[in-house]
Amino acid sequence: MKATIIMGSDSDWPILETAVKTLEEFGIATEVMVASAHRTPDKVHNFAASARERGVKVIIAAAGAAAHLPGVVASYTTLPVIGVPINSTPLNGVDALYSIVQMPSGVPVATMAINGAKNAAIFAAQILGVSEATVEEALRRHRETMAIEVEKKAAKLLAKQ
Amino acid sequence: MKATIIMGSDSDWPILETAVKTLEEFGIATEVMVASAHRTPDKVHNFAASARERGVKVIIAAAGAAAHLPGVVASYTTLPVIGVPINSTPLNGVDALYSIVQMPSGVPVATMAINGAKNAAIFAAQILGVSEATVEEALRRHRETMAIEVEKKAAKLLAKQ
Amino acid sequence: MKATIIMGSDSDWPILETAVKTLEEFGIATEVMVASAHRTPDKVHNFAASARERGVKVIIAAAGAAAHLPGVVASYTTLPVIGVPINSTPLNGVDALYSIVQMPSGVPVATMAINGAKNAAIFAAQILGVSEATVEEALRRHRETMAIEVEKKAAKLLAKQ
Amino acid sequence: MKATIIMGSDSDWPILETAVKTLEEFGIATEVMVASAHRTPDKVHNFAASARERGVKVIIAAAGAAAHLPGVVASYTTLPVIGVPINSTPLNGVDALYSIVQMPSGVPVATMAINGAKNAAIFAAQILGVSEATVEEALRRHRETMAIEVEKKAAKLLAKQ
Amino acid sequence: MKATIIMGSDSDWPILETAVKTLEEFGIATEVMVASAHRTPDKVHNFAASARERGVKVIIAAAGAAAHLPGVVASYTTLPVIGVPINSTPLNGVDALYSIVQMPSGVPVATMAINGAKNAAIFAAQILGVSEATVEEALRRHRETMAIEVEKKAAKLLAKQ
Amino acid sequence: MKATIIMGSDSDWPILETAVKTLEEFGIATEVMVASAHRTPDKVHNFAASARERGVKVIIAAAGAAAHLPGVVASYTTLPVIGVPINSTPLNGVDALYSIVQMPSGVPVATMAINGAKNAAIFAAQILGVSEATVEEALRRHRETMAIEVEKKAAKLLAKQ
Amino acid sequence: MKATIIMGSDSDWPILETAVKTLEEFGIATEVMVASAHRTPDKVHNFAASARERGVKVIIAAAGAAAHLPGVVASYTTLPVIGVPINSTPLNGVDALYSIVQMPSGVPVATMAINGAKNAAIFAAQILGVSEATVEEALRRHRETMAIEVEKKAAKLLAKQ
Amino acid sequence: MKATIIMGSDSDWPILETAVKTLEEFGIATEVMVASAHRTPDKVHNFAASARERGVKVIIAAAGAAAHLPGVVASYTTLPVIGVPINSTPLNGVDALYSIVQMPSGVPVATMAINGAKNAAIFAAQILGVSEATVEEALRRHRETMAIEVEKKAAKLLAKQ
Repeated sequence: MKATIIMGSDSDWPILETAVKTLEEFGIATEVMVASAHRTPDKVHNFAASARERGVKVIIAAAGAAAHLPGVVASYTTLPVIGVPINSTPLNGVDALYSIVQMPSGVPVATMAINGAKNAAIFAAQILGVSEATVEEALRRHRETMAIEVEKKAAKLLAKQ
Repeated sequence: MKATIIMGSDSDWPILETAVKTLEEFGIATEVMVASAHRTPDKVHNFAASARERGVKVIIAAAGAAAHLPGVVASYTTLPVIGVPINSTPLNGVDALYSIVQMPSGVPVATMAINGAKNAAIFAAQILGVSEATVEEALRRHRETMAIEVEKKAAKLLAKQ
Repeated sequence: MKATIIMGSDSDWPILETAVKTLEEFGIATEVMVASAHRTPDKVHNFAASARERGVKVIIAAAGAAAHLPGVVASYTTLPVIGVPINSTPLNGVDALYSIVQMPSGVPVATMAINGAKNAAIFAAQILGVSEATVEEALRRHRETMAIEVEKKAAKLLAKQ
Repeated sequence: MKATIIMGSDSDWPILETAVKTLEEFGIATEVMVASAHRTPDKVHNFAASARERGVKVIIAAAGAAAHLPGVVASYTTLPVIGVPINSTPLNGVDALYSIVQMPSGVPVATMAINGAKNAAIFAAQILGVSEATVEEALRRHRETMAIEVEKKAAKLLAKQ
Repeated sequence: MKATIIMGSDSDWPILETAVKTLEEFGIATEVMVASAHRTPDKVHNFAASARERGVKVIIAAAGAAAHLPGVVASYTTLPVIGVPINSTPLNGVDALYSIVQMPSGVPVATMAINGAKNAAIFAAQILGVSEATVEEALRRHRETMAIEVEKKAAKLLAKQ
Repeated sequence: MKATIIMGSDSDWPILETAVKTLEEFGIATEVMVASAHRTPDKVHNFAASARERGVKVIIAAAGAAAHLPGVVASYTTLPVIGVPINSTPLNGVDALYSIVQMPSGVPVATMAINGAKNAAIFAAQILGVSEATVEEALRRHRETMAIEVEKKAAKLLAKQ
Repeated sequence: MKATIIMGSDSDWPILETAVKTLEEFGIATEVMVASAHRTPDKVHNFAASARERGVKVIIAAAGAAAHLPGVVASYTTLPVIGVPINSTPLNGVDALYSIVQMPSGVPVATMAINGAKNAAIFAAQILGVSEATVEEALRRHRETMAIEVEKKAAKLLAKQ
Repeated sequence: MKATIIMGSDSDWPILETAVKTLEEFGIATEVMVASAHRTPDKVHNFAASARERGVKVIIAAAGAAAHLPGVVASYTTLPVIGVPINSTPLNGVDALYSIVQMPSGVPVATMAINGAKNAAIFAAQILGVSEATVEEALRRHRETMAIEVEKKAAKLLAKQ
């Protein structure tokens, strides 16, 4: 197990699904959890406190509204925690963004864009790529593929004009 | 012990001091704690999970920035938790306000104005006043005194004109 | 009568309905009122000024836009008032949130999340649970049920993968 | 008595002082009151409900924070109410602005800029100027004087270059 | 002609229509204009500069986006100008609100809620009601009718429960 | 005369001064005006309508608060107008930014950063540089100088460490 | 080639299409490019650094979200760059607006309204119109046509009443 | 060389200094650079494109205002980039926050709190700690020390009461 994706509610799944797929594309073993910082706090505590010894290397935590989950996970581990603010209230995700990014000094959460689940997966790969050459290689190829896709779409658009 | 005031950082004390004084004026036994949801999570957990059996009846939790403390306390107890967002970052307290007020369904935090420590104490008294006649009586007197003070200030201002 | 739910407009009812149901689940006798701080101010005044002697113990007040209702109610009683900002204008409920939460020193309103009617009901129960053992017991069971439901949903989600 | 200036707190006076002076310049008889929508609600009620029969023709109401005063005054009278949002909290007056301007359908408040006390006085004069030729004349002269002052300041600035 | 409603674009009409109807209900003679502060500035200038002598007593100006129309009209007349911010861009009407309400010292615009066309009409009536008894009488009846309608809706809602 | 800098108030001068100096450095003949869209609208009209025939090629217009000046100028000329939002109210310049940038379709204003007077001057030079080789040459040198200055400051900082 | 329109993603095309048409109406030769500041940075670099010598006179760059494209293009050329913030995230285009308009001193981007593609084209024409009489003539006609269209729509609306 | 701290301006140094000290405490070899995404784009390009082969493992990039630096660096490397939004304009750092966190899909930047330089250093250590046991050990000790310091400050505060 290299990466864990933890989300505050099963309603976040349609946003998070792309993160799982992206991690698989990078060949990174991934587990998925649903646990709420407020409704199942002990489960979150137990997961976070034991994650490193269970072999987890990087954690992606997603939550909307007050969105305490990423920060609470980070308070129980020194593993890198990547936070994904979910747009799930009338405040357009600004509530979740502020709650995740404004962590106090001492316990950081690496914050992605609102609903930025795919980038969370890519950043998790970048963290693993620091020490694992195969992941780093996959990241390079991903960048190249992405540039080619941008070009293809551009060509298609310009052809239509 | 009837009320606990818990704050995320000792730098919040100048704002919280007025809450302690107000609770004393209402004759409510109060304890003060400093504990961080992220830097000392176990202390927060232990306090919140045992508060009711230790005789605490209402909790005031204050925090700035990501301000997870009130929500984390609320996740470990069914006692009423009153949250005070502290203005301690360039975001003028909006970060703390959103993090405290936007709690997900199931675990409420009763949110006060930004830096609204005095109102947190008054609201704690209002909660206790539901079942304690002496507190309720003190609240009535407080309202009357407040109205008289507004009148005095008004008279002083108009006299100066 | 233990709790009153008062709303500024009948259009707020779809949001508030869940609060009535939740209070019923906790076995709390509840009345519902529609009264506008601006269109029927005398009705609001009369209700709030006489609520305590009529046996009301906690008030939930919901309003959108300028959302003065919770504060106006609070100005006429020392009972605890829980405010629910309703998202009913292009400002996404931020107008109602600021109008309710930023009450001046002396007259607090316990503010919930935007559209957070269910949490208002749970918080009302938490207030009553300070002095009523049966309500407190119901709150504990509610927390446990909620945790079990999160687990069930999580299991269902992970099974689908 | 033609105009009443009512403010929620004596701390608003430094902002409101200019309104009194401006009304005097227009020759409009003015009274000043301090009354809080939340701390002295009955005083506000009595003032607003009797204002028209006491000869008041226009009301300027100023308040900061939740800033319910202008709306509460407007709910008890059909006289035109001009609201001035005061910048008195960390939210830079946006809380007061939203609370005053977002009045529900049926009970308008004419909202001025944050801290815009002088414009409130000018607008009160414009209302009276609809039916009083001397006030209308004074407004025309005020506009001309203002234009001349802009020109003088401009000349001084350009001379310094 | 007592009142003029001027709007920046014909696309604002669905919002403004209610203002025309409300003014008619109050028996106030009303004209409607479409003129853009930026696309037909001379038309706006000519209208505003001559409005008083043409017998106009109060102006309602509505605009979205940069929403300069109310302020530009106000710069050419001392008649009271009521501004209605229209929600017509991705900024939810906050752009129009700020552009209308934050007028500089000397040239006020009485700002209504975002899309608050009906309140603009009522406030126009309140201005005219200062000197015209029949309008004032109509405003009183309108308030009473409004209160009765709130009560009817409330009764209907509570009967359904 | 190649460029005109017009500002809504002499209080904007400390921000605008740098624009004059920068235009001088680029060798662009510049005039400075103070004129208010609301307090001296005819002066603004006359200036804007005649600017092109007076030989003006680009206009920089700065204003705070409702900040209509740049848009009003643009409505009377087809010359390029560069708008500078000034931070002069409690809203931190967001009011001026929205009022300037959100111009309706048909009449653009090229908006700079809040208080971005220097960039307004540089952009004016870039517009003139499209057809004037000496200005374009000056812009290239300015870029090079700027890069060298960044390097010098960097070297100084790193030396201090 | 006189003008280049560059966009960060082919999904921006429905917004940008109107810019191409408008430039054609003004008789300005235009090329369209899709290139991402982050996904194809070298393409952006090469385009911007060589634009002037390829005969480009003005650049329109549109992007949503972090929206670095206009600023990155501007960093590699002294040609005037017009930025169009695209509304493509839950933040309603405020993210793109701030990223484009708040450029640091030295490298300006002329920012248009959110989704303001048409105005970008008009402003590009205004820049070219400084030195090209035929474009300036087209701009004048465009203004006149626009005023006539506003009048036609107004007449249609008023006829329907 | 394990970590590089790159900042957009030497004026950011007082905020960034703490990041350098923190990395030193963790025993991580660090280099410091000043380079502007807009004023010295080639320097940024060259640094980022060659960082990995020069042995850099993690990059901290800080910038205020439009704050493109972290995203531009990330576009030229697959190393993990940590972004620090600097509060350097009237927008309180919200401009920099949105510009850094809202990166488009494909090129993530791990965003810290506004001015959160210390947390950037700690997160850099957490990334290295995934594969380096000594860094991970240092992080654990840092957490323990932090908890002890919170306790000391709390004791001091409570003793003073």
